[in-house]
Amino acid sequence: MRDYIETSGKGLRPALLLATCEAFGGNSENARVSAAVLELLHNAFLIHDDIEDQSDFRRGRECMHKRLGVPLAINTGDGMQSLALRLLRQNLGPLGPETGMRVVDEFDHLLQQSIEGQALELGWIRDNRLNVDASDYLRMCLKKTCWYSFIHPMRIGALIARPHDVASGALNLDDFNAFGFFLGAAFQIQDDVLNLVGSQDSYGKEIGGDIYEGKRTLMLGQLGLKAEEPEQARLAEMLSNPRDARSTQDVAWVLERMSHYGSIRYAQDAANDLLAAARNEFARVFAGTEDPPRAFLGQFMDYLVTRQV
Amino acid sequence: MRDYIETSGKGLRPALLLATCEAFGGNSENARVSAAVLELLHNAFLIHDDIEDQSDFRRGRECMHKRLGVPLAINTGDGMQSLALRLLRQNLGPLGPETGMRVVDEFDHLLQQSIEGQALELGWIRDNRLNVDASDYLRMCLKKTCWYSFIHPMRIGALIARPHDVASGALNLDDFNAFGFFLGAAFQIQDDVLNLVGSQDSYGKEIGGDIYEGKRTLMLGQLGLKAEEPEQARLAEMLSNPRDARSTQDVAWVLERMSHYGSIRYAQDAANDLLAAARNEFARVFAGTEDPPRAFLGQFMDYLVTRQV
Repeated sequence: MRDYIETSGKGLRPALLLATCEAFGGNSENARVSAAVLELLHNAFLIHDDIEDQSDFRRGRECMHKRLGVPLAINTGDGMQSLALRLLRQNLGPLGPETGMRVVDEFDHLLQQSIEGQALELGWIRDNRLNVDASDYLRMCLKKTCWYSFIHPMRIGALIARPHDVASGALNLDDFNAFGFFLGAAFQIQDDVLNLVGSQDSYGKEIGGDIYEGKRTLMLGQLGLKAEEPEQARLAEMLSNPRDARSTQDVAWVLERMSHYGSIRYAQDAANDLLAAARNEFARVFAGTEDPPRAFLGQFMDYLVTRQV
Repeated sequence: MRDYIETSGKGLRPALLLATCEAFGGNSENARVSAAVLELLHNAFLIHDDIEDQSDFRRGRECMHKRLGVPLAINTGDGMQSLALRLLRQNLGPLGPETGMRVVDEFDHLLQQSIEGQALELGWIRDNRLNVDASDYLRMCLKKTCWYSFIHPMRIGALIARPHDVASGALNLDDFNAFGFFLGAAFQIQDDVLNLVGSQDSYGKEIGGDIYEGKRTLMLGQLGLKAEEPEQARLAEMLSNPRDARSTQDVAWVLERMSHYGSIRYAQDAANDLLAAARNEFARVFAGTEDPPRAFLGQFMDYLVTRQV
């Protein structure tokens, strides 16, 4: 269970949770266990997602199921989920039953949404859907990524900072929802773009891996809708094959068609629009909060969507 | 998520939990949510186990991952685990925070032990261990099966029946541990024997499937230790192949050697000894409890270890 944790990534989610807690005047010590639960669940999701997506690489090395086999990797993810439950339970003492239980409810919603989002995406792949439009994609992205990676980290951080304001209604946690959605969608689209145009050394996953996996990104969705009839047939045919039957030629062809139809440009524009909306929301939601953590969150936002790796 | 629940098996675990609650004078209505959590987790385990063990059949039809594919099946099991967390949280209201939290702790231990047991068994298969003796097997069986299927159902049932006696120490939940271990091990060995000698129609799984899966049963362990050198080499060779490379001839040979070395007889004797020990413990632990549910539990115990299907 230490395997993914010890080679952990950027720690975006705990950083967002802890910084939001401090921005709202809280002591981030009180949020440490919740941040750990989040990172533990994130890594558990990654282990299972890597199997579900048939990924090969993660953080610059082979995925767990490639090294230990699928059976032990599934079980390891389950083990991390059960340790997360234990940490949540330990939280109830220090936070007090009322706030502790609200944190449990945040995690409950987070889990349900993430799993539903994953079910949507896997269902599209299984059904070989080629008419995934921007609205479908954004709904999936909200469910699969935004709640657990962006919205709930901020909600939980603010809740732990100001439990009485949340209980009285003076602080409405739903205020974070739109901001987290805009930022999360911008981040995810950027991440999907990097998967197509980045370099494996710095990105840590195989380039074009999403095309091998048949992942319904905004780019693939746009291509599926824009492409001419014979190209659509070729795309559908290629994506109906098992993953191993997709060749580097197939992937190169998809990339070339994406370039032809401006799919990547389209996605980058969408990410920029979402980022602009996120900046507006950030200014509104974090107005009047404490400055060193608030400034950190501003830089954090810029980093997320301008990073090249 | 309804898929395995709606074709659910015998409901042994909820039955044991609810009957124990009533035997100890409780109202089984109060235990209903906990019984549902248990059945939900059991079915979530089965979905993941069937993938991990590369099983083909469950309850007379193809396993979920054979029908929906591995990705959606992993995600479905995760979804059921997260719904179990939600039910546990709902439990805290009706049971009160103190008893509700004790129930959470019971489930925490149950999850940890089951996942460790699964890790042990999968590790033996991965490492192609052939020196799994009775002590190794029983330890794995305690962890993987007995805690969640036998010991914790009784502990939780009794806890909900008599929360004050548990809090004061008048009722010690550890009293169920030995009984649940003996009964659970007898049940598991019997289940493993049926996998080798049962009929697929009534058993619902493929006959000899455990040998295809390389499962370290008491019989395979005994054969590995008893077999002559060249037979050991053949066994090791066969079990080092991927599952699909094991032929019906291989499986028939293993069954024949088990018969030669008395492996199945040995396991049946062990199950009978464990059952005798379980009967003693049952009489001791349930002495003075209420009779209709107590009589039911006695019959339940007989059914478990004498059933042919």
